[in-house]
This record gives sequence, C-alpha cells and structure tokens, in this order.
Amino acid sequence: MKSTYSIAEIQSWDRFTRANFINTLSGFKSLSLIGTVNGKGISNLAIFSNIVHLGADPALIGFINRPLEAAPHTLQNIQETGFYTVNLVTESMCNQAHLTSAKYPEGVSEFEMTGLTEEYREGWKAPFVEESPVQYLLKFEQVIPIELNGTFLVIGSLQAAFVPAEIQEEDGFLDLAKVEILTSLGTSGYYKTEKISKLPYAKVK
Amino acid sequence: MKSTYSIAEIQSWDRFTRANFINTLSGFKSLSLIGTVNGKGISNLAIFSNIVHLGADPALIGFINRPLEAAPHTLQNIQETGFYTVNLVTESMCNQAHLTSAKYPEGVSEFEMTGLTEEYREGWKAPFVEESPVQYLLKFEQVIPIELNGTFLVIGSLQAAFVPAEIQEEDGFLDLAKVEILTSLGTSGYYKTEKISKLPYAKVK
Repeated sequence: MKSTYSIAEIQSWDRFTRANFINTLSGFKSLSLIGTVNGKGISNLAIFSNIVHLGADPALIGFINRPLEAAPHTLQNIQETGFYTVNLVTESMCNQAHLTSAKYPEGVSEFEMTGLTEEYREGWKAPFVEESPVQYLLKFEQVIPIELNGTFLVIGSLQAAFVPAEIQEEDGFLDLAKVEILTSLGTSGYYKTEKISKLPYAKVK
Repeated sequence: MKSTYSIAEIQSWDRFTRANFINTLSGFKSLSLIGTVNGKGISNLAIFSNIVHLGADPALIGFINRPLEAAPHTLQNIQETGFYTVNLVTESMCNQAHLTSAKYPEGVSEFEMTGLTEEYREGWKAPFVEESPVQYLLKFEQVIPIELNGTFLVIGSLQAAFVPAEIQEEDGFLDLAKVEILTSLGTSGYYKTEKISKLPYAKVK
C-alpha cells in the first residue's frame, strides 16, 4: 500500500521534512565535487548532485546551481576564470565531501577545512581533488537562469578526463562501481552501488 | 595510475564509444520512467535518467529531453496535456524499462510493447506505471531550449506523490534502496544501491 500525498499536504510540512521528501523523491543522483579558483587564487570545493549529461557531440555536461545568495562561490569562480573540475566521490572521501557543504568564513578554502587535497595539472588553474579516482575538466559555456525559482543551469564543455584504465570497458563505458564511486540521495544520503546488468541498445525485432 | 584523455582524443573515437564514455563519466543518475498521453489518448512511456531536483518551495523537478527529432513524444504530450507522471524503476522492472527506449511504430504505446501496466488515478489523465513503488505527478511549467545542442530542460511542479510508507523516515527522507529502486549509469548500466551513511546537515563548529 502506498501513502498518497497531495502537494497541499507536502507544503504543510516543516521546510526540512518537505525538502528531504522532495529531494529524495526524484531518485539517486551523481555525487560530484566541483573545484574552482577565484581571480585571487583562493580555491573552492563544493558538493553537487544535480548533474546532467547534455550530449556527447559536442560533449556538454550541466549542473544546477542554487540561488546565488545561498551558493555564490562556485558559479562566480567559474564565470571569473572560465574553467572548473568535477571529481566523483568514493566511500573513503564521503565524509569530507559532505563537509564541503558547511558555511565557512570568506577567504577560507574548503580543501583546507575538509582535508581533501588540491591537485593541479599543468596548463589548468582549476583544482582537482587528488583523492578522486575519476576527474574531468570543463570549460564554461553558458549559464541559463531558471526564473521560476532563482536557480541556474550551468553548462560546460568537456576538455579532458582522468580515469582509471581498469574501469573502462571496450565500448567506452566506465564501470564506476569498480572504484567505489557513490551515488547520492537527497542532501544527506550516500549509497554504494553494485552492477546488476548492462543491457544492449534496445531495438524492435 | 589514471589514463588521461584530451577532448581531441575522445572526439577521435567512434560515436558509440564516445557517447558511452561521456555519459558514464558524469556519474550515476536517477532511473525514471515518464508516462504521458497525447490528445488522442495514446499513452507513451519513456526512460529518462537526467532528472534534477530544482527546489522544494515551490517543488520543482526538471529533466533533459533530447533533441525533438530524436525524442519527440514525451515533450509533445506534456505540452499538449499539461501533466506527466514519473515512476522510479526497480530491479524487477529493469529490462522492461530499458525496452521503452526502442523505436516503436507511430501510434503504438510502450506500455503495450513492454508489458508494463498502465495505472490511472481519478482526476488525472497521465498514466502511472503500476509496477513502480515510487511515483509522482508533475504539472508542466516551462520548457527551456538549450541552444548549444538542441536539447531541452523541461520543468514541472509536483502535484502529488505516491510512496510506500515503510521507506519514509521521520525527517521526510525516502530510503529508496528499501524497495530496490535502481540507479542508472549511461544508457546501458543498471545498478542496485546500498546505504552507507546518512549524514547530518554540515555546520562549522
């Protein structure tokens, strides 16, 4: 038996209960840390789960940024410097990744506060997370304001990817579970994964 | 040791390898079936994984629709009738859910072709998937064209939710793993999940 909730009933709940419910209702999400740096060289690291694959040719990946008053730094840094890294999160990095969501004083890097390690690659200013086995670099392409609630869809184009050879299958597929990449649920749930099937391209007989 | 790939190298791969690589690189996603009906009463069911939580107040959920020439029906039906259902996918529904991505002749419902069961609720025209333990209904709010590649961000507002009582925690969190909801990876990978932690709201001491 299912419980049935109208939106009127959901809206009557306190804001934390409502947010947890709605955020988990839409299912598991990508668990990603976005690394940026501002014009003064101060790095920033923030946890994001609303990541979308937009297309492979050109290779475009988007994420949802909350309203600027709630989450200003990542988007500001991306617009200032033009590049950002995305780093998938494993079980051993999970607690530190979660802590990046706390509100630290201005001018303090989340790398320093959480103990995750900044990794720089020649030619790129944006910091990677050294502990992450799967990392990629995006170039800022477009920010689309979502006027319904003040959020933003931020779109980047893939520039480079850094992945363990042992998770890459012949057809390009990356089996992320092999290096313990997690999936997230809402803003508090962290889940490990296990492959149950990989199905061929669906065709009508 | 990581393999390093520049975008130039990734672009040199055949299109299937490139698409698998880029699509899996961005991490695990929601595994959702979107149910719609057109003005003539023909139902449609399609698998989507690029679902984003946009906000809880108002309760807005978005998804990415591919270019119209590749995936016309879901978006057309949503714009025609104004409402659509989202149905999370379990292990036992996984093969059927995957088959909704095949290209069937015009006028044939994916419900019929895959054997998933249409479920209708009084007052709403859009079909739910009876086999799905976690379902919700959205009202169409806005479609935002993404000009960079011809895709669309489709935004709906939550109208009602149907969830098993036993997965709902006191704080509103839905532990989807308890009813075997899957997460997807790329367009071919299906993974089950296991909760490893639920962490409290991160605060600076």
